[in-house]
Amino acid sequence: MELNEIPLSGLWGERHLLGLEGLSAEQLTTVLDLTEHYDQATRGGTQRLDVLKGLVVANLFFENSTRTRTSFSLAARRLGADTVDFTASSSSLSKGETFIDTALTIEAMGVDMVVCRHSTPGAPHLLARHLKASVLNAGDGTHEHPTQGLLDIYTIRKARGRISGLTVAMVGDIRHSRVARSNIHGLVTLGARVIVCGPATLIPSDISRMGVEVAYNLDDILPEVDCVNLLRVQFERQRGAFFPSIAEYANLFGMNGQRIRKAKSDLLVLAPGPINRGVELTPDVADGPHSVILNQVTNGLLVRMACLTLLTQERRRLQGGQS
Amino acid sequence: MELNEIPLSGLWGERHLLGLEGLSAEQLTTVLDLTEHYDQATRGGTQRLDVLKGLVVANLFFENSTRTRTSFSLAARRLGADTVDFTASSSSLSKGETFIDTALTIEAMGVDMVVCRHSTPGAPHLLARHLKASVLNAGDGTHEHPTQGLLDIYTIRKARGRISGLTVAMVGDIRHSRVARSNIHGLVTLGARVIVCGPATLIPSDISRMGVEVAYNLDDILPEVDCVNLLRVQFERQRGAFFPSIAEYANLFGMNGQRIRKAKSDLLVLAPGPINRGVELTPDVADGPHSVILNQVTNGLLVRMACLTLLTQERRRLQGGQS
Amino acid sequence: MELNEIPLSGLWGERHLLGLEGLSAEQLTTVLDLTEHYDQATRGGTQRLDVLKGLVVANLFFENSTRTRTSFSLAARRLGADTVDFTASSSSLSKGETFIDTALTIEAMGVDMVVCRHSTPGAPHLLARHLKASVLNAGDGTHEHPTQGLLDIYTIRKARGRISGLTVAMVGDIRHSRVARSNIHGLVTLGARVIVCGPATLIPSDISRMGVEVAYNLDDILPEVDCVNLLRVQFERQRGAFFPSIAEYANLFGMNGQRIRKAKSDLLVLAPGPINRGVELTPDVADGPHSVILNQVTNGLLVRMACLTLLTQERRRLQGGQS
Repeated sequence: MELNEIPLSGLWGERHLLGLEGLSAEQLTTVLDLTEHYDQATRGGTQRLDVLKGLVVANLFFENSTRTRTSFSLAARRLGADTVDFTASSSSLSKGETFIDTALTIEAMGVDMVVCRHSTPGAPHLLARHLKASVLNAGDGTHEHPTQGLLDIYTIRKARGRISGLTVAMVGDIRHSRVARSNIHGLVTLGARVIVCGPATLIPSDISRMGVEVAYNLDDILPEVDCVNLLRVQFERQRGAFFPSIAEYANLFGMNGQRIRKAKSDLLVLAPGPINRGVELTPDVADGPHSVILNQVTNGLLVRMACLTLLTQERRRLQGGQS
Repeated sequence: MELNEIPLSGLWGERHLLGLEGLSAEQLTTVLDLTEHYDQATRGGTQRLDVLKGLVVANLFFENSTRTRTSFSLAARRLGADTVDFTASSSSLSKGETFIDTALTIEAMGVDMVVCRHSTPGAPHLLARHLKASVLNAGDGTHEHPTQGLLDIYTIRKARGRISGLTVAMVGDIRHSRVARSNIHGLVTLGARVIVCGPATLIPSDISRMGVEVAYNLDDILPEVDCVNLLRVQFERQRGAFFPSIAEYANLFGMNGQRIRKAKSDLLVLAPGPINRGVELTPDVADGPHSVILNQVTNGLLVRMACLTLLTQERRRLQGGQS
Repeated sequence: MELNEIPLSGLWGERHLLGLEGLSAEQLTTVLDLTEHYDQATRGGTQRLDVLKGLVVANLFFENSTRTRTSFSLAARRLGADTVDFTASSSSLSKGETFIDTALTIEAMGVDMVVCRHSTPGAPHLLARHLKASVLNAGDGTHEHPTQGLLDIYTIRKARGRISGLTVAMVGDIRHSRVARSNIHGLVTLGARVIVCGPATLIPSDISRMGVEVAYNLDDILPEVDCVNLLRVQFERQRGAFFPSIAEYANLFGMNGQRIRKAKSDLLVLAPGPINRGVELTPDVADGPHSVILNQVTNGLLVRMACLTLLTQERRRLQGGQS
């Protein structure tokens, strides 16, 4: 199959990608399958596709994130789109304009898709209600970060061949983590067993409603686990308020060589990064054979290509054009 | 007509676009006609043109403006150009280099057109005297902002079919507004009746020399007016020094539902933005049927495509190449 | 010859461009010859080439430099590459990530070449040991700035037809200048006689080991010199600590009309810029017939195109692909 021949996709039907909550297993599988298509078709490849040719994708980032913004930009340009960046500091918000007016103005410049990161949960949903453009949530406060969830899940599926039946542990600050929430929604829907594990102060008391198990001791659950996803300790957000010390956190929840030896021999170690070496994991684990951390980054680009493609197909379908 | 077939343009003959002052009605009409061509040819379209293929357009912005800079960048890239951004903070000016040396250095990198915004009136004119590149003024202090004037005028012409014979009120801070000055030059040249209206402290005493009428009471003139252009209250530049309070400004010069009902039924409401909701206009007016604010943004891109095209054609003519 | 037909290059064989130290005369000549090819082939031209089509070049700048970064970006895009920028302030380094992890993450996004500027000597060498991507040093502390050296040398060769046998004076702060070091390595290897000249405090005592002569009085050597390269006084790095006053520096080492008259009639005046008018040189010299300062900027783009091309050819050769 040619690279520009996008395979007949299964059910998608979404104009926006705001979160993984509420997406069906079939919809999630559609994304993962298209990601796999791009993964195989572009292997070692340097082709540019025409899928988004002539479209403009705007990054509207109210929180700083070079890595996610760049991944979206490279994905959009690889699909043939033009990209523009708007950041909080440089935007007209500093001149008193409202968030929605800023977004409407950007859209009026001919922007077709808006990738939005914002510290307020629900900000991308607000955009989606006001814009004709497709909105992709690139992280809204502590709520969701759907493309991160998808890239983590794709990384696991690529390594294991499936999601259903696997046991995945999300480790660390579950309470404040949009990465955890998106992973949980996606993994549970796809039939994985998910265990959240971290200091009691960092696990919401009602988390089991999301369909997950709770553990406070990593060593207890480690032998049963197929994948651990080590959430980042966000020093810049909360300093020591939720656990006594970094050393103790690393001791109880950090992944190290000792713990690896107690785990399954084919344990996958994921981390959304940027990683704190010596905190969430030791260098020997980060650089060791269990780690798929850099694969996650590579897969992030492919997942974003798939999401941009599906949203564009849906837009065209709604406009009565070619699918 | 194909999109890449630029219609035979009328008189233009300018290497630079520094202001609307001094441009003839025929020259202005040439820009508006080419804008209309792009407007019709790209409708719903996502094509990239080849008009500026291989050229490099540099944004040289010494005042922050994401919206104008992005509009120029998208216009240039849609025409096939490459773009680069230079901002005051990141430029070598901070290392002691002069303004002209910075510009000459940028030009020496193979830049063909320079879009310049600067707080000093006349800065782009200085560049035009030193560079071989074409210079586009994107706002020089309180002097001119020619593409904003052109996009406002194009928006009116598109809605009304003509400029000549219409009555346009420029409302607000006339004294400090480059947008007002460019609009006045263009509108008067094209045969419109222009009324400037605002607090007496914000209207220069000799403004009538520009061919405009002066009013201090918006309600008095509103019934005669076809278009109001609501200039932005620039809180970041002057806080309350020129009028007693924001509430009083909004009360006397803000556009609201009551005023709309006293105006012509087909009144056009323009605002260069970013708008302050509740100050220059109320939300019901901003989002209501008279407002063409978002059309202005969309037309801005098209006007800039037209300007970049005409300047490029003139450069090629002077170089003895194809027109 | 067609523009996209890269001439059969002589010896190159380097995966990275970390410095001019250690490169042979044949390797240097390979770069200069390819630069000349691009210079002739693109004259007045606006073509985009396909040499780097589908590749991604990342600028990883931990020191601010719009001019060098833009030159690399324009060169890469003219060769068909996509470019992305990472800067120190916006990168994940501010979130605790290590330098190498940042670079590995960028590489994992599909980046093929990394252009790195860093205040620490050897930082690009560290990257080269960890990345599969090609690394280009865009300045590492006081160590090397190889493309600046190459563009200076190309500018001289273009004007004089040769390097061997010429006498080149590097004037100013030799101690802290990566530009001086790269120029010295390249010029000496290619057979030039190099004299370093500046305040005694700014010339390392063991500099003669690099194969250069030392002078403390510019007027003494000026009559013998074919080219002077006037290093920048970096006010932002050291304020008056190494010489009594700017006026005295300008008086002793600045190039001015009087000095020009004592020099050879075809003296070439180079300066890496951004220049301080009235310090390293007077305006009449900067803008006079001996100055090739803006040629250096233009040639910088061409030299970077040549370097990017050679590194890409070597990568492909190593990967067993087309040369």
